[in-house]
Amino acid sequence: MSDKLIIGEEKLENRLFTGTGKFPNQEIIPDTIKAANSKVVTMALRRVNFDTPEENVINYIPDNCRLLPNTSGARTAEEAVRIAKIARAAGCGNWIKIEVISDNKYLLPDNQETIKATEILAKEGFVVLPYVSPDLMVAKKLEEAGAAAVMPLGAPIGSNRGLKTKELVRILIDEIKLPIVVDAGIGKPSQAAEAMEMGADAVLVNTAIATAEDTVAMARAFDRAVKAGREAYLAGTGKVKNKASASSPLTGFLGE
Amino acid sequence: MSDKLIIGEEKLENRLFTGTGKFPNQEIIPDTIKAANSKVVTMALRRVNFDTPEENVINYIPDNCRLLPNTSGARTAEEAVRIAKIARAAGCGNWIKIEVISDNKYLLPDNQETIKATEILAKEGFVVLPYVSPDLMVAKKLEEAGAAAVMPLGAPIGSNRGLKTKELVRILIDEIKLPIVVDAGIGKPSQAAEAMEMGADAVLVNTAIATAEDTVAMARAFDRAVKAGREAYLAGTGKVKNKASASSPLTGFLGE
Amino acid sequence: MSDKLIIGEEKLENRLFTGTGKFPNQEIIPDTIKAANSKVVTMALRRVNFDTPEENVINYIPDNCRLLPNTSGARTAEEAVRIAKIARAAGCGNWIKIEVISDNKYLLPDNQETIKATEILAKEGFVVLPYVSPDLMVAKKLEEAGAAAVMPLGAPIGSNRGLKTKELVRILIDEIKLPIVVDAGIGKPSQAAEAMEMGADAVLVNTAIATAEDTVAMARAFDRAVKAGREAYLAGTGKVKNKASASSPLTGFLGE
Amino acid sequence: MSDKLIIGEEKLENRLFTGTGKFPNQEIIPDTIKAANSKVVTMALRRVNFDTPEENVINYIPDNCRLLPNTSGARTAEEAVRIAKIARAAGCGNWIKIEVISDNKYLLPDNQETIKATEILAKEGFVVLPYVSPDLMVAKKLEEAGAAAVMPLGAPIGSNRGLKTKELVRILIDEIKLPIVVDAGIGKPSQAAEAMEMGADAVLVNTAIATAEDTVAMARAFDRAVKAGREAYLAGTGKVKNKASASSPLTGFLGE
Repeated sequence: MSDKLIIGEEKLENRLFTGTGKFPNQEIIPDTIKAANSKVVTMALRRVNFDTPEENVINYIPDNCRLLPNTSGARTAEEAVRIAKIARAAGCGNWIKIEVISDNKYLLPDNQETIKATEILAKEGFVVLPYVSPDLMVAKKLEEAGAAAVMPLGAPIGSNRGLKTKELVRILIDEIKLPIVVDAGIGKPSQAAEAMEMGADAVLVNTAIATAEDTVAMARAFDRAVKAGREAYLAGTGKVKNKASASSPLTGFLGE
Repeated sequence: MSDKLIIGEEKLENRLFTGTGKFPNQEIIPDTIKAANSKVVTMALRRVNFDTPEENVINYIPDNCRLLPNTSGARTAEEAVRIAKIARAAGCGNWIKIEVISDNKYLLPDNQETIKATEILAKEGFVVLPYVSPDLMVAKKLEEAGAAAVMPLGAPIGSNRGLKTKELVRILIDEIKLPIVVDAGIGKPSQAAEAMEMGADAVLVNTAIATAEDTVAMARAFDRAVKAGREAYLAGTGKVKNKASASSPLTGFLGE
Repeated sequence: MSDKLIIGEEKLENRLFTGTGKFPNQEIIPDTIKAANSKVVTMALRRVNFDTPEENVINYIPDNCRLLPNTSGARTAEEAVRIAKIARAAGCGNWIKIEVISDNKYLLPDNQETIKATEILAKEGFVVLPYVSPDLMVAKKLEEAGAAAVMPLGAPIGSNRGLKTKELVRILIDEIKLPIVVDAGIGKPSQAAEAMEMGADAVLVNTAIATAEDTVAMARAFDRAVKAGREAYLAGTGKVKNKASASSPLTGFLGE
Repeated sequence: MSDKLIIGEEKLENRLFTGTGKFPNQEIIPDTIKAANSKVVTMALRRVNFDTPEENVINYIPDNCRLLPNTSGARTAEEAVRIAKIARAAGCGNWIKIEVISDNKYLLPDNQETIKATEILAKEGFVVLPYVSPDLMVAKKLEEAGAAAVMPLGAPIGSNRGLKTKELVRILIDEIKLPIVVDAGIGKPSQAAEAMEMGADAVLVNTAIATAEDTVAMARAFDRAVKAGREAYLAGTGKVKNKASASSPLTGFLGE
C-alpha cells in the first residue's frame, strides 16, 4: 500500500511515533520499539550520556529508526536552539522536536517561543517538529516558519487523559497542510485510533507504553490501533444516525 | 498466545464477530469476512433463501466460520423459538442469537421475551446468545436461564453512534461471569477498541463494516482495533493523572 | 406561566423532586426542601419512625409537599406491594415510588418485578412512579400497567456520575407519553439542566443535595438549574454548527 | 450575598455577560438583556451607527449596563488598538474586549496579536478583556500585560458546540489569578452551568440567546443556569463514586 507519511524528505511507513522516557529500565526499550513498529523515536537530549555508552539511551534505539531528539528542558527559544545544535553536532541527525516549557505543573508548551525556535532552526536546515498547544493561528505561523509537521497536544504530557483537545485538533487537521502528529495525553489504543480516524497523520505515544505492565504487548496494541484508525479513515467510516436501521430485515418473517 | 474466548464448548481465537446484512452485494462478503478474521458470523434466517443457492447468503460465509443465525423478525419469545428450530433443522448448527424486537423505530430488544426464549432454547441444547438492552438484573436472569453469552447493545442497531451505554455495560462486565459481547451501535474501530479495553470479551460489528466505502479495508481495521483493545486490556493500561508528568526530564538542562 | 407537570391528577409547578436520605441531620431538611422549592419529596418508608415523632422524617417535610414514599428495601414485587400498602395505611397518601432492588453493589432495579408491582398497585388506586433501568420496552409495559410516570436512572443511585444513560433516556422521552422523571445519578445542577433541556419532565435529586457542604445553597442551585433547563427546552435551543458564525461582523471594519 | 466579581474596579453582581449580535431585530434587545440580568454587554463597535440614533445598538442597551465594546473586525494588534480608542472617544467608556481574528472560517483569535494589543491598551488606562484560544502560557502573558480578565473560548464563536476546551480552561481557572470568563461556543444553559461549576468566574453568551425562538425566555434560562452553577461551586459539589450508595437503606426492611 502506498499510504506513506512524508516528513522532511522521508517517507514513513509507520504512523506511531514513540519515546524513550519513563521505562522502568532501558533494556526493554528495543523490544518495545520493535513491537510498536515505530520508525521515529524521540528522546530527551539531556538524557543522552555520551560518556558512558552502556547508559546511553541511543544505544537502545533500533538502527532503522529515525532519531527525533527533543529539546526538553528548554525554557526559551534560545535554549531550544542551543540544544538542537548540540544534538546535531553529536550525530543525532537533523530532526528536532521542539519543546519549550516553563510551566512546571502541567508542562504546557510556550507556543510563541516555539514559533521563534522553529523559524531559526528551519533556516539552519533542521527538520523541525514543534510541540504546541493546539491553536490554528499558531499552526499557520509554524507553517510559515518552515516547520515540517505540527505536534498539538491531546492533553498534558504523561496525563493519559486522552484526546481532550479534539475540537481544536480537528480544526488543525482541516486547515493546515503540514502533517499533524498528535503528541501527549494519549493513554489508550482506542484514543490513538480515534485521533487517526479524525484524520491525524500520526501520533506520538510514550508514557502509555512505557508505564504499562507489559510494555511490549502495549506497544503492539498501539501499533494495531494506529493502523486501524488510519485504515478506517481511508476506508470511509459510515454515517452516524439518530434512529436505528436494521442490519437484518425486521418484520413479518413468521407472520407472513 | 492462549487468550481464547470460550462460548459453548468452542474456543474462539478471534473476538470480532461480524454479520451479513446491509452489504451492497453478497459477492464482497467472503473477502470482507476474511479481512475481519472473523470466525463467528451472524445472519438473519429469513434472508436465507434455501431454494436458490446462488442467492443463499450462507454460501458467501467462509467454511471455517461458526454460523450464528439470528431470530430477527421475531416479536415474541415463541416466534424466536420457532425461528431457532427452523435454523437448526436447516443445518445452520445449534448456535442462535436471540433478537426479539417489536419496536420498529429504534429496534430495541424486549428483554423479558428474550429471557423466556433463552430459557426454552438452552434447555433444548442450543448455544444461546441473547441480544439485550444492558441491564444487570436481566443479565443475571439470562445467566440462570442458561445463556452462553450476553450481548448488550452499545446504541441502537445500525446507528453507528458508538458505545453510548458504557456505564451500564461496564457493570455487566464486572458482575456477570458469562462472556459479554457488545452488539449494535459500534460505528468506528476506536469504539470497538474502547469496548475491549473496558474488558468486553468480544464485539459484533455489522453495519459499520458493510456500509463502509471499502468494506475489506474497514474489516481489517476493526480486526486490528479489537486485537489492540484486547491486548491493551491484558497489558494493563496506565493510570489517568490530573497533572502532567514529564516523559523527559523537565528543568535545568542548560541552565545548570 | 401555565407550564405545569401533571402526575396523577395533580398539577405540579415545580419539576425538581427531592429526597430525605443521607442528610447529616434531619434538622436541615425543611430549609433545604424549601430552598429547592420542591413539592414532591420521597422518603423510604422504613426510615419512618411512627413511634417517636421527633425522629419521624415526615415531620421534617414541609406541609405543602406531596409525600412520595418509596419501597426501598423491597427485593420482589410482592414486598414492594406490601410496603406501598403500609405507607397508605399510615397516612402517607396514595403516591408510591416503586424501588425493587436485589443488587447490593450498584443498587440497580429489577425492571420485571417493578412492572408486576406497578400493575398491582395501579389497579388498587395508587399513583405509581416506578424507578427503572432505562429500557423502551419496559417503559411501554409500565404505560400499559397504569404507571403515572416513568423514573429512569441516569447512573447508579448516589453515584453522582451524571446522565450516563442519556442515549436511552432520550428514546423514552421521544416515545413514551407518560412524564419521564430522571432519577438517580445526577450529581450537579448542570446535569439536571441537561436532562431538562433534552425534554425530561422532571428530575429527582437527593444525594447531590444532601451531601453538599451547604445543602440549602445546593438545593437553590438545583432549583434554578431545573428551571433553566425547562425554560431552554421551551424556548428552543439553537442549532449546533460545525463552523463558526460571527456574533459580530468579521471583516473590513478599518480596512474599508 | 457578598459573592461579587471584580473586574477593573467594578463589583459585578451578575456573572452572565451578553452581546447584541445576531438578534432578529434590535427592538427585542432591551427586554432580553433585562431578562438575563446582565450588567455587562458587548457590542461590535462597527455596528454602532453614530449618525442614525434609531439604528444605534447602544440605544437598545439598558442604562445600568457596563458597555463592553469589542474590536471585532480587527486583524492585527494595531487595528484593535485603533478601534479601542475610537470606542472610548465615542463615549463607550474604557472597557474593551479585544478580538483579533484573521481566520474567516472558524473565527479563532490570534493570541499573539491579542497580547500585544492588551499591553498597549492596559498602559493607556483601558480595562482590557482579551478573547483568546485557551493556553496557559498566553494567559500568564496577558496577566503580565495588564489584562483585567481572560476570556478563553469554549468552542468557535457562534457554533453552540459547548465547552469543548474544558481541559484547557480548567487549567486556566486553577493557575491564573485573573477572572476567567468563558466566551464563545456555549449553546445551552447546562453548558454555562458546567463552566461555572468548574470555577469559571463568568460566561459570555450571545448567539445561543439571540438565535433562540424566544430570546427573553432563553435569557432568563441562562441567568438561572449561571447562578445555579456558581452556587453549586460555592456550595461544594459532592464526590463522584464508582459504585452506588443508597439514598435510602437497602436491605432487610420486610425480611427482618
